Amino acid sequence: MDVQAWMTQAREQVEQWIQESVGSWRAEPVSVEEAMAYSINAGGKRLRPQLVLAAADYLGIEQERIQNAALAVEYLHTYSLIHDDLPAMDDDDVRRGRPTSHKVFGEAMAILAGDALLTEAFVLMTRLGEAGFAPSGVVRATGQLARAAGRQGLVRGQVQDLAGEHQELSLEALSEIHRNKTAVLFEACLSIPALLVEDPHQAQVLSSFGRHFGLAFQMVDDILNVVGDARQLGKATGTDAGLGKATYPRLLGMDGARALLGEHVRDAKHGLDPKKAEVLEGLLTFAVERTW
Amino acid sequence: MDVQAWMTQAREQVEQWIQESVGSWRAEPVSVEEAMAYSINAGGKRLRPQLVLAAADYLGIEQERIQNAALAVEYLHTYSLIHDDLPAMDDDDVRRGRPTSHKVFGEAMAILAGDALLTEAFVLMTRLGEAGFAPSGVVRATGQLARAAGRQGLVRGQVQDLAGEHQELSLEALSEIHRNKTAVLFEACLSIPALLVEDPHQAQVLSSFGRHFGLAFQMVDDILNVVGDARQLGKATGTDAGLGKATYPRLLGMDGARALLGEHVRDAKHGLDPKKAEVLEGLLTFAVERTW
Repeated sequence: MDVQAWMTQAREQVEQWIQESVGSWRAEPVSVEEAMAYSINAGGKRLRPQLVLAAADYLGIEQERIQNAALAVEYLHTYSLIHDDLPAMDDDDVRRGRPTSHKVFGEAMAILAGDALLTEAFVLMTRLGEAGFAPSGVVRATGQLARAAGRQGLVRGQVQDLAGEHQELSLEALSEIHRNKTAVLFEACLSIPALLVEDPHQAQVLSSFGRHFGLAFQMVDDILNVVGDARQLGKATGTDAGLGKATYPRLLGMDGARALLGEHVRDAKHGLDPKKAEVLEGLLTFAVERTW
Repeated sequence: MDVQAWMTQAREQVEQWIQESVGSWRAEPVSVEEAMAYSINAGGKRLRPQLVLAAADYLGIEQERIQNAALAVEYLHTYSLIHDDLPAMDDDDVRRGRPTSHKVFGEAMAILAGDALLTEAFVLMTRLGEAGFAPSGVVRATGQLARAAGRQGLVRGQVQDLAGEHQELSLEALSEIHRNKTAVLFEACLSIPALLVEDPHQAQVLSSFGRHFGLAFQMVDDILNVVGDARQLGKATGTDAGLGKATYPRLLGMDGARALLGEHVRDAKHGLDPKKAEVLEGLLTFAVERTW
């Protein structure tokens, strides 16, 4: 299988679902839906819904059936970006080449658009029964996403990130932040399809794949910030060093960082059935070898 | 039955659950749980969890079994207060006699504490199966709460409230704001127990009770702002008129507002079995005759 072709198809499928979903929102003169749609339509790699679709592919679940879970993880990710960009947080004016939500709609609307996207993710999750998944699987998958998003996942990661910004961090502390900021949601993306079909063993294997994938993904971000090409990346490089930010290359040296990255890539594949894992492994390779 | 005694017991039960739940959160030097607990422990009437318990009482469901739903609606309500109080929103420095979350912990932490409380509500909802409710009921109840919280409920109400602050509103527009800001969550509180035991007829009857209760509750707020005693209320009166805010007394006159309130109280009871509705009706009477 051509994994690049699979990714193109998966991404187009996700885009189509997003446009249908966003298009069905009722608009009003002052509309939170407009602000929600603005941030969702900012593009991005749609990596998290692709992880959901890749896990579904591994388990032999048709893409159509997993639609609401794929949308839910993208909406949840988008909420976290909107809130992270707020003046009180990272205070970013630009994301993906466009003004951030609060620059366009004001802070109040940006906060509310994030709140509504987070909530919408759970509306979508609870509708997965319509695709024929057993209610007990839907409950487990929804709970998993909620835990990944909350005080023991995404929110904790952002709190730790804000607290650690101007501090020297140990390798352990840095990994803990990356786990919460990125890997926990990757784990949820990967395990949700297995939870929906009530396969706890595969949920564990896929969750582990997601954790290592997430940590590897963050390491590549760190490495590209040192050696990447700003034009290809679409963002400035060398910014971490300028901020004195704790990164893997800084803590381990570039060779040490690359070695640890290799370990995560190897560990990610542990327990996967190689006959079914072509898409999963292809996505991982693509993410690790990326220059974006 | 002495409804006042029932309310005291229910409120103490909710307090005990909250303290157990909050006490189990892992604390760290910089802890989002500390900010979450601060706002939850600000007290308040715990009206929404009492609505959940009252509906459970009506349906013959033991209080213990409904614990996670009672906590979920209170956490969700607390999130909405934290975010509504933010400088970008209503910019309130004090709530219930204490500094608001962002005054104590800073804006970033207040936003994150709200995000985490909203998310925690869904973690709790997905655990209701542990109390023996069927997964299909848990899914419906969780979906109901998500819809009540999101772009077609609480968030929409706050958007409309911010947009309408300095505008002349029609009675219809005012009712629509109150429905979204208050009544939709009351409807969810009342219908969740019926959805958990998969009784769609009672879910509808109780949801209607919740809608009329919520609208009546808002009307009493408006009326007390005109005729209430500031000391008893624990907050300033006459503030709506000062702001030129649209209220029921302003749109209908005081007599008209009281008449409409009476209609909602009557309509709320429609379809209820009077033999089982003592607690529900008592709570409604208490809320309508309150001076707080």
